[in-house]
Amino acid sequence: MKKYAIGLDFGTLSVRALLVDIEDGKEIAQSVFEYPHAVMETHIPTGETLPPAWALQDPGDYMEGLISVVRGVMKSSRVLPTEVIGIGVDFTSATILPVYKDKTPLSMTEEFAHEKHAYVKLWKHHGGEEEAILIDKIARERNEEFMKMYGGKVSSEWTIPKILETLHKAPEVYEKADYFMEALDWILWEMTDKLTTSACTAGFKMFYHHETGFPSKEFFKALDPRMENFVEEKFNIPVLPIGACAGHLCDAMAKELGLTPGTPVGTGIIDAHCAVPGGGVGKPGELMIIMGTSSCHLMLADHSAQIEGIQGIIKDGIMPGFFGIEAGQSCVGDHFAWFVDNCVPEDYTRQAREKGISVHQLLSEKLAGYKAGASGLVALDWFNGVRSPLMDFDLNGLILGMNLLTKPEDIYLALIEATAYGTRAIVESFEKAGIPVNSVVLSGGIPSKNPLIVQIYTDVLNREIKVCASDQACALGAAVLGTAAAPESITGYKDANEIAAKFAKLQDKTYVPDPEKVAVYDKLYAEYNTLLDYFGRGANDVMKRLNKIREENK
Amino acid sequence: MKKYAIGLDFGTLSVRALLVDIEDGKEIAQSVFEYPHAVMETHIPTGETLPPAWALQDPGDYMEGLISVVRGVMKSSRVLPTEVIGIGVDFTSATILPVYKDKTPLSMTEEFAHEKHAYVKLWKHHGGEEEAILIDKIARERNEEFMKMYGGKVSSEWTIPKILETLHKAPEVYEKADYFMEALDWILWEMTDKLTTSACTAGFKMFYHHETGFPSKEFFKALDPRMENFVEEKFNIPVLPIGACAGHLCDAMAKELGLTPGTPVGTGIIDAHCAVPGGGVGKPGELMIIMGTSSCHLMLADHSAQIEGIQGIIKDGIMPGFFGIEAGQSCVGDHFAWFVDNCVPEDYTRQAREKGISVHQLLSEKLAGYKAGASGLVALDWFNGVRSPLMDFDLNGLILGMNLLTKPEDIYLALIEATAYGTRAIVESFEKAGIPVNSVVLSGGIPSKNPLIVQIYTDVLNREIKVCASDQACALGAAVLGTAAAPESITGYKDANEIAAKFAKLQDKTYVPDPEKVAVYDKLYAEYNTLLDYFGRGANDVMKRLNKIREENK
Repeated sequence: MKKYAIGLDFGTLSVRALLVDIEDGKEIAQSVFEYPHAVMETHIPTGETLPPAWALQDPGDYMEGLISVVRGVMKSSRVLPTEVIGIGVDFTSATILPVYKDKTPLSMTEEFAHEKHAYVKLWKHHGGEEEAILIDKIARERNEEFMKMYGGKVSSEWTIPKILETLHKAPEVYEKADYFMEALDWILWEMTDKLTTSACTAGFKMFYHHETGFPSKEFFKALDPRMENFVEEKFNIPVLPIGACAGHLCDAMAKELGLTPGTPVGTGIIDAHCAVPGGGVGKPGELMIIMGTSSCHLMLADHSAQIEGIQGIIKDGIMPGFFGIEAGQSCVGDHFAWFVDNCVPEDYTRQAREKGISVHQLLSEKLAGYKAGASGLVALDWFNGVRSPLMDFDLNGLILGMNLLTKPEDIYLALIEATAYGTRAIVESFEKAGIPVNSVVLSGGIPSKNPLIVQIYTDVLNREIKVCASDQACALGAAVLGTAAAPESITGYKDANEIAAKFAKLQDKTYVPDPEKVAVYDKLYAEYNTLLDYFGRGANDVMKRLNKIREENK
Repeated sequence: MKKYAIGLDFGTLSVRALLVDIEDGKEIAQSVFEYPHAVMETHIPTGETLPPAWALQDPGDYMEGLISVVRGVMKSSRVLPTEVIGIGVDFTSATILPVYKDKTPLSMTEEFAHEKHAYVKLWKHHGGEEEAILIDKIARERNEEFMKMYGGKVSSEWTIPKILETLHKAPEVYEKADYFMEALDWILWEMTDKLTTSACTAGFKMFYHHETGFPSKEFFKALDPRMENFVEEKFNIPVLPIGACAGHLCDAMAKELGLTPGTPVGTGIIDAHCAVPGGGVGKPGELMIIMGTSSCHLMLADHSAQIEGIQGIIKDGIMPGFFGIEAGQSCVGDHFAWFVDNCVPEDYTRQAREKGISVHQLLSEKLAGYKAGASGLVALDWFNGVRSPLMDFDLNGLILGMNLLTKPEDIYLALIEATAYGTRAIVESFEKAGIPVNSVVLSGGIPSKNPLIVQIYTDVLNREIKVCASDQACALGAAVLGTAAAPESITGYKDANEIAAKFAKLQDKTYVPDPEKVAVYDKLYAEYNTLLDYFGRGANDVMKRLNKIREENK
């Protein structure tokens, strides 16, 4: 009998199902569903408007999407329900909602349909900025041990700031909710009728530690007395390691999806993190970078460590048996898109059109055979602030070294190089903390489409780089975890790591450092690093002062 | 009888004659002649090729142009030769050529027609870069007093480096030449049959001091033993103050030009400096800025002073009776043009075309009602190196503070502001040296076309600004000096200062500082100044290192 697994990848704007053959991870069918409400940034469905920096979603979209995509792959693949041996789910994270104990989201009740705080707060909802600052301050004052896992600064994109914001601004929502939960956990609950969460989301977004658990009551009380018993009252959910079985498909949901009741469902994982199993990264020393509008850097380690400005270092948080580390860069594809949209002259746009290629491709063509350092430029990739290693969003971009001969492609190159230097700064912070980085795997649309960028990263990092062959590494990773949820007796696999190694496909090409460029990039990186220190660590806070002046004169 | 003067303005690419009524300076006729050989940067007329950074001219072009434009204004104005009471001449400076004592330029002889060093080395000829460094080194070692007049650093654009280059590279040209002279002085010699030079060119470009004369024999000997007697042997020419009579039109030239023999000809002046009389600036405290591709800052002072990074402070060098001060910014219009050519997206270019305006105008329109500081950007205007106050051409541009919302007009504004900050740095260096700057007059195409830029300068400098009404302030200034060459009994004017006050026309509008913007610009200028110190005075020589890396990897 053939055996299949389904990976479900809940992204920011859509959910995708990937059905794979568990023998080798071969992709049999795909189906995508775009959320009808997409990201709500200006108003909720009932018409109430939203303040700036808000980003909400409608939980009904997830459910509709789940049913649509599973039915989609089953129909197009003609696989039998009994042949599906497991389902894995990844989801955007710190994407949270208040829920009643009968599983109903508060936003889906008449009482709260008009209340914006009752909806799903998406990962990029920044309404809790003040709360993040408060939490950071209190955690520092109390010298909370858990802060060491997170590079030392709380982001408003994490879970607790969003919940505290709700408590501050809409206390009735806080009071009435039986749970505040990840949308991921809510979907798994609906699927399995079992309430679970994972070391991944709890660890990376909620300060959970595998030995000490969640932060103390005293800490929560210090945030707000009403939160003292938050964990018992609103988050009484067991934490499972990645690679485990979260439960089995319940009858009702099996019927909705057209699958067999009792099908194993894997522990939920953060969408980006799912590229690790999807990219076959299964052991320490391999760095996985998911390059998109921003970049996410994921590593496995044998042991814990204190690393500057990371998003977390979490036991069993990415793959079973290891500490998972997450770091990030705020501005990668965004950076290049900004440049192409705002800074490329008509003549170039016309050339690209005439050649039938994108402006990105045109600029890359103009850079063919470029020499490192020939542009004379160095940039700071801080157009969207800095995640790792500085964790400071009050910083901005810089381009240095222009003269009257500087061409658009020189600046484009400098921006690419800047993101590579930013990655090198992260790699160095890992190594400084005793986590060696031996090789690198890139995944995402940018590396698969742009070999120039991959080669620059190879030369700047002075490490061999491989690129994921699948453009659906996350969904494939979810299928890995879906397979891992089923018993070895069915799958023949020992654990998720073994499955990942089998499923993952990398491009044949290995990018190899060019020694000449490496030598120049060592010098240029030293300049980048000096500027990083000068503008990023307090010697000259001009960027912060300019931001303040900008705010005052808006 | 009506009386007229002719101003001759020998620029980089053309010569212009302006014929004015001396009663009020009214412009009666103009004529322009473009040099047939323009600027020779790749080869000389005989086909020999030129190294990079060279810029030569053919002296025959000047003579042909002189005759053409004088005849042109006489013909179109129908003024009688006897009604022309004086001629003034301005010229690009440190534009020098080797000449025989019969007035023949060596380049016009068969012997040297193939020798590149025999041609006119134009002001922007940079072939003597090594020589400039050598001269600077020797002058410093010898602690030469004259260096204090020049802000402490020798430019390869000045005269002596160009002559030393000829001695090093083509000693036979050096040996055979009877004179190395300014093209300006050569033209005056041809016109008057009298050999003179002016305090302006000798002072600003040849280290001449009104009390101590040219540098010592020992200094020249230290440069090269063969130069020990340079002044006696190759530059035995009397130095006259500005506003004097250099001589009278000789018979032969009067015939060529269609004028009366004996017509007075004024002392020659540097073209940019001629905007001072042309703009009516006649007393200390008034700063004249000629804004073009680069900017030239000219001031009159009662006394000498040591000012950082100026081009010179010269007695009678700009207007009679005062010390003339010159400072400069290397990159102003060039800066804006670079941006418009390289960094403005297709959509903007299309909008400008549809509106029938230039991209500069479109960007200015988009900035209408802008608030200082709202862009959050600060730039360094160093795209072409820095003249004043750093006198360092091994520096480059910088733009700081971008985020993903930064628009092209924000960067355009930041570049304009950067040039205004650069001017403020110059003004502050004047004031620090005890030369107060009370008001500012702008001349050139940029301020007459772009009120936004003028207002930004007004707010950044926190000083009232007037703009020259004439777009030919230099030619008008030459007419002032032509008039001053004639006796008071003919003109009715006491001196050049009085004539300048009469001839010059300023726009009616006075630009007045906006206190709100002034307050913000004080803060932004402080940031600029910190960056100027950090990147320009040795704390972080990243730009020099990048230039070196760029050179190594070309």
